[in-house]
Amino acid sequence: MVSKLSGDLLPCNGTAGHLLALIRRGYATTRAELAEATGLARSTIALRLDQLREAGLIRDAGDAPSTGGRPSVQLGLNADAGVVLVADLGATHSRVEVSDLAGRPLAEQAMDMPIADGAETVLHEVERMFEDLLVAADRDHSAVRGIGIGVPGPVEFAAGRTINPPIMPGWHGYPIRDRFIEAYGAPTLVDNDVNIMALGEHWATHPNVDDLLFVKIGTGIGSGLILGGRLHRGAQGAAGDIGHIPAGPESMPCRCGNLGCLEASAGGGALAARLEKAGYQTQNSRDVVALVQAGNREAVQAVREAGRLIGGVLASTVNLLNPSVIVIGGDMARAGEHLLAGIREFVYRRSTALSTGHLQILTSRLGERAGIVGAAAMAIEHVLAPTMVDQLVSTPQ
Amino acid sequence: MVSKLSGDLLPCNGTAGHLLALIRRGYATTRAELAEATGLARSTIALRLDQLREAGLIRDAGDAPSTGGRPSVQLGLNADAGVVLVADLGATHSRVEVSDLAGRPLAEQAMDMPIADGAETVLHEVERMFEDLLVAADRDHSAVRGIGIGVPGPVEFAAGRTINPPIMPGWHGYPIRDRFIEAYGAPTLVDNDVNIMALGEHWATHPNVDDLLFVKIGTGIGSGLILGGRLHRGAQGAAGDIGHIPAGPESMPCRCGNLGCLEASAGGGALAARLEKAGYQTQNSRDVVALVQAGNREAVQAVREAGRLIGGVLASTVNLLNPSVIVIGGDMARAGEHLLAGIREFVYRRSTALSTGHLQILTSRLGERAGIVGAAAMAIEHVLAPTMVDQLVSTPQ
Repeated sequence: MVSKLSGDLLPCNGTAGHLLALIRRGYATTRAELAEATGLARSTIALRLDQLREAGLIRDAGDAPSTGGRPSVQLGLNADAGVVLVADLGATHSRVEVSDLAGRPLAEQAMDMPIADGAETVLHEVERMFEDLLVAADRDHSAVRGIGIGVPGPVEFAAGRTINPPIMPGWHGYPIRDRFIEAYGAPTLVDNDVNIMALGEHWATHPNVDDLLFVKIGTGIGSGLILGGRLHRGAQGAAGDIGHIPAGPESMPCRCGNLGCLEASAGGGALAARLEKAGYQTQNSRDVVALVQAGNREAVQAVREAGRLIGGVLASTVNLLNPSVIVIGGDMARAGEHLLAGIREFVYRRSTALSTGHLQILTSRLGERAGIVGAAAMAIEHVLAPTMVDQLVSTPQ
Repeated sequence: MVSKLSGDLLPCNGTAGHLLALIRRGYATTRAELAEATGLARSTIALRLDQLREAGLIRDAGDAPSTGGRPSVQLGLNADAGVVLVADLGATHSRVEVSDLAGRPLAEQAMDMPIADGAETVLHEVERMFEDLLVAADRDHSAVRGIGIGVPGPVEFAAGRTINPPIMPGWHGYPIRDRFIEAYGAPTLVDNDVNIMALGEHWATHPNVDDLLFVKIGTGIGSGLILGGRLHRGAQGAAGDIGHIPAGPESMPCRCGNLGCLEASAGGGALAARLEKAGYQTQNSRDVVALVQAGNREAVQAVREAGRLIGGVLASTVNLLNPSVIVIGGDMARAGEHLLAGIREFVYRRSTALSTGHLQILTSRLGERAGIVGAAAMAIEHVLAPTMVDQLVSTPQ
């Protein structure tokens, strides 16, 4: 109970971890700015900076622009103080990376790998790739500070385990987190693919936006919610599940067992099936996008109509959450303006004026890298969180 | 920028404000427990407790249960260290109160007062009642630590001003917060009525629930969202507006100017109008509830059908947010099981199994006091927030 209170509710000033947060976000990067921002004495600042320097977490980043007196040293995160290992596991395709502590990739690999091969096979392969990438990046195990993994199914976040994932046979309850903690002795975080995409887009593209909704439109439809600057996971980690909200023809059967779900009419899988019936060779959402990009009228109409259905659901979401940015990602986002036009049409028609006055609806800037960037963000923000840093600097190395 | 970072993101241990938070929530109430919870030296704990005692914020609350050694003193918040002035202003009815710092009412008053009389008239009356109540509670202005006000319309929270409130003519942009700060020199917070009801129910009835949705069903329909333990207001303070999500007959005109909104079919105003057409004397939602309580079959059916429509919208909300508790409040909540049955029916039919596995749907425990309790909670949590307390104890009185 105390940990929740300490971690969540209590703001504070002036610990080493706090100073590092101010430095790495650029709020205060010189001793003078840090003293002003925290109200601490210069001597205390110097002591804390020594601790951070001894832990290897900060470095001098050159002289700050002169303000008349003698030049002051500009401080920065030492992004080389360690690496994070991250993986974005998809249904059929995965991406694995070694990043520095600023989120820059040092080595990366993408490959086709069916998640349905099961946890042992897939995670063994991920570990093998992590080893190869560490060699390629010229780092060893001692450099690994944290690990971040995204998977295409529901995750019990605190335990780092998948829970009844529909497209991941054999993964239910598998202790993903514990496996990597044992292998690398580093803190490991596991979350679902849409949540890490939301984290990635927020971290890299919209860091100052408090309330952001990330919508993934691929074979299915899901969303990740950044609310008050933090990922909202919900009581069972099930938040963001907009694909099974009723929209479109009520008779349309959904793979979830219900009728009339949004993704049964507007998901990439549904569009591919509909166009296939009309005589096109569309196996999946990528094929639908290819048809749209080739200017096929039926495909364009289908995508635009899907956008309207998605926009109807998002309109309700906008009324409920009043976000300032909606980011559209996933394979279907590459259908671009055709999809966006339908979405915008219904959001602006059905949301309240107060909620849409400053609302932006955009496609993902990171595209297919959103997940891997988010996995890195999740690991790095955990490793460099003030409480973690404070523990690190107070523990003899 | 720094203040946001300091206030929101940075956890900490061991300041006087932190100790008070641990004490008042019952996490640690003796010196030994505080030392264990914070890792601080006993001498530091003693110093901080002296600061809190000098500021009048804590008191001895008797001996703790003996654990073998000499009895340890149990510490508690000194709820008499000040008062908060709170008001819950409704469309036609208002409630005003003086509370101690534990939220216990010392004096209160409820009265009929049309909000449409305008800001000057209404707030002048509120101030007059505050004065009367302070006299009744035997306190003077110097005891006032904070003020909390709820109003029946959209509020720009940071500024404490109403924004285009539909049922509050003449209130647009009125500086409610600044008026009370000037009159009492105490921090003042203003929010809309549904948000403070959500705060009240969370604070008094479900303090350990992280994700709670409060739904007010009165003449109209609105909601307040507690997400991750905090009230989610959204980018323009417009979050929670579920009354204007499409549900029910698409042709039904809504007072917002759109067609087919939830409250146009399922709000207490809509039900009263429908039953009036059928020959009943129903002017408002209270009359509808009276008919239901008298066992009238048409009224029961109308309420149950309204419950289904509301349940359909809440099902989507549950998929999106995965709350663990939904509290149904407002006048119509007194229609009890008839309303709840319809709501539960549709939520369990249309939400995903993962989201409803542990979901509770309940009626408000606080009833018509939810708003005033929430206004007190809002003011008290602000006044006793660790950063505010730390400022107080470091400033010469």
